[in-house]
Amino acid sequence: MTNRRHPLRGLTPDEIKHAAAVLKKTVQAKAGGSADNIRFQHITLDEPPKALLLPYLDAESAGVDPSKRPWVPRCARVTWSHVHERQDCETVVSLDTEAEVTHIDHQAPQHNGLDRDEVIAATIVILTDPSVVAEIKKFQLPENVAVQCDTWPFGTDLSSKEDDPKLIQTILYARAPHNHPESNQYSFPIPISPVYDPFLKKVVRIDTVATGGKEDGLKHNTVAPEVALKHLAENEYHSDLQKGNLRKDIKPLLIVQPEGVSFTVEDETKISWQKWTFRVGFNWREGMAIHDVRYDGRKLFYRLSMSEMTVPYGGKDSSSDVNYARPLLIAIHLPDPRSPHHRRQAFDLGDAGAGITANNLSLGCDCLGTIQYFDGCLSDSAGEPYKAPNVICLHEQDNGIGWKHTNPRTDVAAITRARILVVQSIITVGNYEYIFAWHFTQSGAVEFETRATGILATSLIDKGKTSFWGNVVSPGILAANHQHLFCLRIDPMIDGLENTVVQEDTVAIPYSRQENPNGNAWKVVKTPVESSSFADAAPQNNRVFKVVNEKKINAISGNPVGFRVVAQPTQLLIADQCSTVRRRARFAEHHLWVTKYRDGELYAGGHKTNQSHDETGGVFDAASRSENVRNTDVVVWQTYGMTHNPRVEDYPVMPVEILTVALKPVDFFEKNPALDVPPSMQSINKSVLVGQADQSQPETTY
Amino acid sequence: MTNRRHPLRGLTPDEIKHAAAVLKKTVQAKAGGSADNIRFQHITLDEPPKALLLPYLDAESAGVDPSKRPWVPRCARVTWSHVHERQDCETVVSLDTEAEVTHIDHQAPQHNGLDRDEVIAATIVILTDPSVVAEIKKFQLPENVAVQCDTWPFGTDLSSKEDDPKLIQTILYARAPHNHPESNQYSFPIPISPVYDPFLKKVVRIDTVATGGKEDGLKHNTVAPEVALKHLAENEYHSDLQKGNLRKDIKPLLIVQPEGVSFTVEDETKISWQKWTFRVGFNWREGMAIHDVRYDGRKLFYRLSMSEMTVPYGGKDSSSDVNYARPLLIAIHLPDPRSPHHRRQAFDLGDAGAGITANNLSLGCDCLGTIQYFDGCLSDSAGEPYKAPNVICLHEQDNGIGWKHTNPRTDVAAITRARILVVQSIITVGNYEYIFAWHFTQSGAVEFETRATGILATSLIDKGKTSFWGNVVSPGILAANHQHLFCLRIDPMIDGLENTVVQEDTVAIPYSRQENPNGNAWKVVKTPVESSSFADAAPQNNRVFKVVNEKKINAISGNPVGFRVVAQPTQLLIADQCSTVRRRARFAEHHLWVTKYRDGELYAGGHKTNQSHDETGGVFDAASRSENVRNTDVVVWQTYGMTHNPRVEDYPVMPVEILTVALKPVDFFEKNPALDVPPSMQSINKSVLVGQADQSQPETTY
Repeated sequence: MTNRRHPLRGLTPDEIKHAAAVLKKTVQAKAGGSADNIRFQHITLDEPPKALLLPYLDAESAGVDPSKRPWVPRCARVTWSHVHERQDCETVVSLDTEAEVTHIDHQAPQHNGLDRDEVIAATIVILTDPSVVAEIKKFQLPENVAVQCDTWPFGTDLSSKEDDPKLIQTILYARAPHNHPESNQYSFPIPISPVYDPFLKKVVRIDTVATGGKEDGLKHNTVAPEVALKHLAENEYHSDLQKGNLRKDIKPLLIVQPEGVSFTVEDETKISWQKWTFRVGFNWREGMAIHDVRYDGRKLFYRLSMSEMTVPYGGKDSSSDVNYARPLLIAIHLPDPRSPHHRRQAFDLGDAGAGITANNLSLGCDCLGTIQYFDGCLSDSAGEPYKAPNVICLHEQDNGIGWKHTNPRTDVAAITRARILVVQSIITVGNYEYIFAWHFTQSGAVEFETRATGILATSLIDKGKTSFWGNVVSPGILAANHQHLFCLRIDPMIDGLENTVVQEDTVAIPYSRQENPNGNAWKVVKTPVESSSFADAAPQNNRVFKVVNEKKINAISGNPVGFRVVAQPTQLLIADQCSTVRRRARFAEHHLWVTKYRDGELYAGGHKTNQSHDETGGVFDAASRSENVRNTDVVVWQTYGMTHNPRVEDYPVMPVEILTVALKPVDFFEKNPALDVPPSMQSINKSVLVGQADQSQPETTY
Repeated sequence: MTNRRHPLRGLTPDEIKHAAAVLKKTVQAKAGGSADNIRFQHITLDEPPKALLLPYLDAESAGVDPSKRPWVPRCARVTWSHVHERQDCETVVSLDTEAEVTHIDHQAPQHNGLDRDEVIAATIVILTDPSVVAEIKKFQLPENVAVQCDTWPFGTDLSSKEDDPKLIQTILYARAPHNHPESNQYSFPIPISPVYDPFLKKVVRIDTVATGGKEDGLKHNTVAPEVALKHLAENEYHSDLQKGNLRKDIKPLLIVQPEGVSFTVEDETKISWQKWTFRVGFNWREGMAIHDVRYDGRKLFYRLSMSEMTVPYGGKDSSSDVNYARPLLIAIHLPDPRSPHHRRQAFDLGDAGAGITANNLSLGCDCLGTIQYFDGCLSDSAGEPYKAPNVICLHEQDNGIGWKHTNPRTDVAAITRARILVVQSIITVGNYEYIFAWHFTQSGAVEFETRATGILATSLIDKGKTSFWGNVVSPGILAANHQHLFCLRIDPMIDGLENTVVQEDTVAIPYSRQENPNGNAWKVVKTPVESSSFADAAPQNNRVFKVVNEKKINAISGNPVGFRVVAQPTQLLIADQCSTVRRRARFAEHHLWVTKYRDGELYAGGHKTNQSHDETGGVFDAASRSENVRNTDVVVWQTYGMTHNPRVEDYPVMPVEILTVALKPVDFFEKNPALDVPPSMQSINKSVLVGQADQSQPETTY
């Protein structure tokens, strides 16, 4: 047991192979079972129950030797199917005993998402299918221009029920006539959409895609195919295709850390920095997850993760826009009167996976300064492990002034810089990129920053027309209005597991001789959440949500110690109350959910999202249990998002849009925890006056 | 005329002297006038009328030689009084002709703010006044402990009218027993408040300050003075007083710009960077102002400035808390049942001045990298100029990833960093610091970042008590609940002066067979503002305000070119509708105001705010003119703020709280304007892998 892997570290390649073998053995052992033709989808660590894991983590935090910490079981979660059956299965196996721990046969309409091998097969079949080739030919593309195929899950259409078997819908694009491999295909959408059955491995039909404008209503085929693409124009984002038009007047700015970094990484995933300790985890679905966050040894957060996101599209009237995805993305479409675009609604984590789509981060490109990278380990359809390199990066950043006061009597300034520790992962889900980063601060706060960038969803629009459903961002290119709705899962342990969420509103007091004779007064109304439920932002009341430990009282203020959840009060899901869109993503109906902790309840949108009819087993169901959430082990789910009505400036690639959720101590400490940050001093920071650069700057070899 | 100073550059020392001389001459020339005993307050550039200035700026932008640009008058605005009269006066004089251009005799209740000489005199008189010394003695401070005096304007009390003559109210604090000059006085408030008449130059009375808790209602003198301060404890922010408890594990992080900066500064205040050009200005009241912002030669903003801010205090029931100010600050108090704390409401620009209170920024402390500083020129009560050094700094920052897309077919990542240009000024207004920074981006956006830091307003609270009106943040120290409400003035010229503000809401469409059969659709409702007025944030509708030029149509989208004003929808002024607080700060009643441009109408809270009874000549009055604001020269005023119910973590010095207002192009450009930013490359950025720092990092002398 002394060499046992830390229970929060991901599966090793050997463990993945072991899990696959155990799964095969388990299946074979069942009545009529056969291990032949098992098709694996994901093999990942099944995190231990909190009741077993937390004592282990406490022992670790107390400095107990690994060999003397409590025993924690090690299990793998395997999603798989038989090659010759449509049934999706999910089995947890023990890597200690090789026992089957749990097993689920998923029922339609829930399916696993699309995976790499499935998508590669689909792309080959579709692009060589004679009927598809014949359809493409009608558009009279220039000779030898490459056609590319983006795969999408078929989505959900409750009116027809046609989507209950797992299907793949595809969108076709052309490259620019020069066929450069980095040509931006999204400027050349071809308005047909082959539909593919991954079980039968064939194209089952080809839908046409409407290209009309405001004047055309729901009509298809508003122009003849031979002229449909003639008004499109190349619009490139890659620097090689900018024809030398790059700025030449931006000079280098380097982050130099002459003494190295201030963090340490032990046991490959345990990070210590400026009184913080935590583990960084990685799995196919959530990508990075943060575990066991403590500050100066005090418990703060058991687990922090991006739980789910959904990207529904829908402009005025229903949308006419084409959407698409990277091969690995599973994205579900919304109802729309014009088939096949009535099912556009991507669940980027549940359907695609933030781990699967995580970028291989590159030194000096994705981050500046002195960087540590973390690899992930994923598995393929044969159950074989493969390395996902550099999926997470760790580095420090200067975040400007941390605090300052100038004593006006002496003119002495006391000032510190705000250094932050950044744990970052970037995912590419089809057209879009999301840059997710946890920021740990010296003032005791943790922040989760989301940057949305990448390429807009585009579709073809006839020459000279405009649309209710999006904006024309390039000749013939319509970018659809859409939303991005994220749900951050916050599993707190503020000085222990017994926590309470308190809603705090700052409200006016009416003018009255007794209560408010001068009209300047207000009151702060604190309402503890008693039963699992939801709440919405109310910035007009400065509404604040705090997670407090009612049994731990701050010695200075007399208030319970706590942390505040600070999010921007963004627009929630717009879709109609009764719509399929909303039934599938109830988590996006409210800003904040409070539920009682249950092992394995990690996904706001439910365990299976692909082609779902309803959010099942998600945060809505968890909240609906109406359990006590006062002074107990609670989970907080913060929904935030952006409604994106595209600008021309967002094309051909979109400048980052940034949203941040902060977790800030509130009466948790007895002083500003950044009080002991050393002052910001020129003797350390070595800044330079403009014009004196040559003199005061050290000789470098840059 | 060839050597004529640029019309947007501040007055030179000689011009200040000239203006003072002209003012004296002007006064003397009047019937019965005498230039003896004139007391100056401020002498500053009176900016030229837009109708004269803009043609000059257009000529400048077109490359016309200064000698051939239109003539623009040069005037100085002088605020002054006769030493022997209570009357405050304001006169604009021509520096060209020495004529008096305008003159105002300000009527009570409006007064100039407190100035440096007045405050120094007040402090000396108060601290040596025998009655004050006798009162202090009752508290039995340790021998030789220094007592310090924070001056406040007397404020407004409409019930008593007692505040119509100009008065100064003061708050007294002790230093810690060791008397270190950087001792944090705010941990040792003495609960008496001498009131001083700057005209008579004497203490007119001494008020007592209530120190009770929830159980004491409005009572004063709840404990005997000899025990009142005994429970106070030192709580220091300065590093010298941290007793060696500074973190030792934060390693240097340097910003190195080996080729220097990417910006240029001509004519001392004209800045060019990455297709942007603008002028930076500085005056006593607003501090830094940004003029004539153009991008690639296209007009964007005529003038950008922090226009006013107000800081009202008021907890449940009215507040019991003491407040205070730096000598230079003028802060007005709110009504409160317990005299003298019923007038707490600071107007930090109108009463104190963001230029007057601007910090002397320090290389390597306030900013990292390669920095350019700008000095200001202010004037004293004798009308003599003095230099305000390093009041503005200019530098570049890396702001993380600017845009990214990874082509999933080739795994080729296209990525840029987001460099920003930062124009920063920091003000110390008594206890608080505000860090104001304009950020210019490569993607065509301008952002205004506000960081609030510094020390909380504190008052004494009896041992063991808590309060409805704030939080106990240190033994015996109550930090009052309060708000900070800022108003940013945005004077646009989006491709010209004829602009329109459009409110855009994204709203659900009800389920209906014809309009929204699948429930996924929404619509974007655009409403142009026709007549000067206000609007409020509505994040639930993703409400967006755009300034557009209806006569300039984006060739790609067919929409008018424009910029979006993006602010956080923070809580507005809480005080009662009929309260004095609100009458004085109508600008804080709504998030967005749209007015028709008028020369000189710069201040949201009105021209004179000190001891005002009402906001007079502010944005409310401007909006009330009900002028046409469609396709004309409009001004947009964005109010935002924070409701600050203090945490223990905010003491003894507060970690920065950050708010940002962004001005983002929306269909102004025909592509992402940052498309031509060169890719982020390791060959330029020279990042380093952890553990390889010694090898790959160049030798430096740090």
